[in-house]
Amino acid sequence: MPISGKLFINGAWVQGEGGTYHASNPATKSEIEPAMSMASSEQVDAAIKAAELAAPAFRNSSLQKRAEFLRTCADEIMALGDELLERVTAETGYPRARGEMERGRTCNQLRLFADTIETGDYLDARIDTAMPDRQPLPRPDLRHLNQAIGPVVVFGASNFPLAFSVAGGDSAAAFAAGCPVLVKGHSSHPGTSELVAHAVATAVEKCGLPKGIFSLLMGSGSKVGAALVKAPAVKAVGFTGSLAGGMALVEIANARPEPIPVFAEMGSINPVILLPDALANNADGIATGFVGSLTLGTGQFCVNPGLVIAIDDDNLQTFITTASAAVAEVQAGVMLNERICTAYCDGLQEYSSHDGVEVISAGGSAEGQDGYCGQATLMTATADYFLQNTAIHEEVFGPASLIVKCKNKDEILRVVTALKGQLTGTIHCADGELASYTELTDLLSLRVGRIVINGFPTGVEVCHAMVHGGPFPASTDSRFTSVGTSSIKRFIRPVCYQGFPEALLPDALRNANPLGLLRLVNGVKTTDAI
Amino acid sequence: MPISGKLFINGAWVQGEGGTYHASNPATKSEIEPAMSMASSEQVDAAIKAAELAAPAFRNSSLQKRAEFLRTCADEIMALGDELLERVTAETGYPRARGEMERGRTCNQLRLFADTIETGDYLDARIDTAMPDRQPLPRPDLRHLNQAIGPVVVFGASNFPLAFSVAGGDSAAAFAAGCPVLVKGHSSHPGTSELVAHAVATAVEKCGLPKGIFSLLMGSGSKVGAALVKAPAVKAVGFTGSLAGGMALVEIANARPEPIPVFAEMGSINPVILLPDALANNADGIATGFVGSLTLGTGQFCVNPGLVIAIDDDNLQTFITTASAAVAEVQAGVMLNERICTAYCDGLQEYSSHDGVEVISAGGSAEGQDGYCGQATLMTATADYFLQNTAIHEEVFGPASLIVKCKNKDEILRVVTALKGQLTGTIHCADGELASYTELTDLLSLRVGRIVINGFPTGVEVCHAMVHGGPFPASTDSRFTSVGTSSIKRFIRPVCYQGFPEALLPDALRNANPLGLLRLVNGVKTTDAI
Repeated sequence: MPISGKLFINGAWVQGEGGTYHASNPATKSEIEPAMSMASSEQVDAAIKAAELAAPAFRNSSLQKRAEFLRTCADEIMALGDELLERVTAETGYPRARGEMERGRTCNQLRLFADTIETGDYLDARIDTAMPDRQPLPRPDLRHLNQAIGPVVVFGASNFPLAFSVAGGDSAAAFAAGCPVLVKGHSSHPGTSELVAHAVATAVEKCGLPKGIFSLLMGSGSKVGAALVKAPAVKAVGFTGSLAGGMALVEIANARPEPIPVFAEMGSINPVILLPDALANNADGIATGFVGSLTLGTGQFCVNPGLVIAIDDDNLQTFITTASAAVAEVQAGVMLNERICTAYCDGLQEYSSHDGVEVISAGGSAEGQDGYCGQATLMTATADYFLQNTAIHEEVFGPASLIVKCKNKDEILRVVTALKGQLTGTIHCADGELASYTELTDLLSLRVGRIVINGFPTGVEVCHAMVHGGPFPASTDSRFTSVGTSSIKRFIRPVCYQGFPEALLPDALRNANPLGLLRLVNGVKTTDAI
Repeated sequence: MPISGKLFINGAWVQGEGGTYHASNPATKSEIEPAMSMASSEQVDAAIKAAELAAPAFRNSSLQKRAEFLRTCADEIMALGDELLERVTAETGYPRARGEMERGRTCNQLRLFADTIETGDYLDARIDTAMPDRQPLPRPDLRHLNQAIGPVVVFGASNFPLAFSVAGGDSAAAFAAGCPVLVKGHSSHPGTSELVAHAVATAVEKCGLPKGIFSLLMGSGSKVGAALVKAPAVKAVGFTGSLAGGMALVEIANARPEPIPVFAEMGSINPVILLPDALANNADGIATGFVGSLTLGTGQFCVNPGLVIAIDDDNLQTFITTASAAVAEVQAGVMLNERICTAYCDGLQEYSSHDGVEVISAGGSAEGQDGYCGQATLMTATADYFLQNTAIHEEVFGPASLIVKCKNKDEILRVVTALKGQLTGTIHCADGELASYTELTDLLSLRVGRIVINGFPTGVEVCHAMVHGGPFPASTDSRFTSVGTSSIKRFIRPVCYQGFPEALLPDALRNANPLGLLRLVNGVKTTDAI
């Protein structure tokens, strides 16, 4: 279908009244047709109003209906076919295989949420039955159920045009919970956003859901984004991006008369700790795996391994030699857009300007390339220097990593202790080696959302056990994940029903247990009727 | 045991170096001996340091050990005997029966948390096993477990010297999760706090737990309280009190380099909606129940019914007549302290100074009483007036309530729609009557944490299904409750273990399922081993 440059508001495709712009192909620096329109503040208001009106019916829709809707979204995304994959490549510079993989991930994610809500576990149905004869006071009948929090604003992410954008993880979780979704599309991939919005719009219509449950708005973060976060009807925000971007939204959300949660995943440097025996056993293999993880997608992952921590011995030298050689082989990769490319180059320059930071290897130069390219870069510093210079604890988004050389185990622990919150922490260790580093996993578990043993942090599996989040500044709230089925918890809140007549209770809480849920009844998990 | 006026820091009773003061008996306005000491900033730091050091061992302690600790706390509180009850009465003005009931609630709460953590359900153990042959990429082994968030600061509440203070709900939930607790005792009941702290301290020792897991600090909110909330080692805050007090803590917490959650329960006006048929059936009975709920504990409950909403017909007049007569019979009750009493009188004066607000009944006068007393007060206003004057939507903490007279159903809905977030909302209705008010429970469910049918909001049951919280400003985060076993969720965060060798996994995630937990294994709930 031809891309129109329109916005989707309250069930209709409309020309944005806030101006137009062209997306850019980062591989060629050329404009992509057609002109894409942006929302005026009246259009933002209209989308919010529609979401507010649609919220009650959507909140009260059945689990089956929402599961059907999520699956239909996946089907409709697949039905977009090659046009979607081509547009992803044009707007992001990602190779087609990456687009294909991300599309698969996005559709699997929608289907996994469908399966998940059908079990009803996320409702956390709890029933404490009345005890009319209890002394000194009777106990009333009390029943607990999670319900949708209300309209959610989802910000599209630059680096995942499908999996963290229009119908990505935040939207899937919000839809699964029964929350209308207002998407602020990312300016880098408006055509991709429009195509996916078509798929979602078709699914809304096919499933007979209220048309206001989904809108796609394009425009600047400071205008359209801020207006969405300020709207009283909006009850939560999902965001994946930079620390500055996330915290700007947090500030707006906290200043509202009714503050709302902003679930911002803001990246991290994802330390990889290489223990001596692991390096002694397999320095070359680890180095090869590491460079693969570092340069995947031109390093544009939140879980990119930006920091290596190891004791400076001969085996680390072997690792460094092999990794350096591998990095030198990596061609300059296309980055997502001019801004990200510039920020990478500037960040790298800032980083390497520290006199204790040595650039030990670089991949193919970005100079002379047609697109916005980033050069893979490997640096070293001593633990001493790292501990004294917190500026080099910050993320440089792209294919760059710093190897921190430690004198001994104690320095490793000190470096880990000095780290701020991270999405992931990785340890490479030989069999039994962690026994001499018992503090390490404990220290990491306080600082990260996910600990990886003998692997690499890239590859965030969408499953039940995933935690993609972590202590600040990796995310704004370490109690929640933004990937995996647990991420639905961001968009629900519990309500207690006291003394309700059976007929007025939600199905999930009725005595007969018509939904067949596993419920906590007087402290015991059971699927039995009351 | 004689009350010493000392603080409990890092396992030792020490004289506070931040000055002394005397508690006051609100029933007699006289000082209570002995002088109570307050913490210096060095002492606050020492307590924080001790909590930080104790955190790893406590976080990794077994569920059984923590359950034993919680039960021992309850036993030791009971062992304080009459001395505790007498001190509660002296410091709060509550009758002995109230102290006894609150003690029972506090101990039951500790024991319920013990039972709850023994099931391990709150750990939310999830396992997605490896799929090494999956295409296009293998899936690693991923395991998810909740862990303690770290040291928690608990602010004692004025109105619940036992159940929301030193060993109250916040502390019980934090201890249950494995978080060290730093209590900032409430200045109104320091002796009660010291006694309960003795019980907790004894339990820590008897159970052989690290001494730093519990400290009791007295002092001002702006000094001791603020210093605790600012401390980098502190990871969450529990607070029950005023909107101003809660938001002051939120501001401090948000301004930290690493912002932390403040779980503040800040009260509400708890609307009670009386539908016409319910009033036609039983206006007198509802009026009697209502006045009982309103004046219980001199109205000093977060869930005190401060607002009545009903259609202005003859039956409402009957309700008003009966309620007015009952209120007139209520003697002026002792309030918790001078500040609360003054705030009640001032708030009432402000409220009733509105020309659309009519005081229709008042209980016994506070004048000439020995103590800090509050006069029960009933007021009316029209829905029109209420809708136009948001100043009278605010809570007046004490035994006062406003009856909003509506012309029709539509006005009821408009009044409910105009309400901010509330802890509770109550509906009195006849059989089948809610069928004509289908929007009402939905509107309420968006604005409250608990909906009560044909009952009254006072009496917050400590159980699995309770939700004591609600949309802002009732609480800072409507996704959490501060009462009931779900409240443990405030003090945990998930960690994902990827590719862990069996021997390094926490017991809860081991293949053999040695703790016998109900786990989510590849999407299916099971107690089976892997």
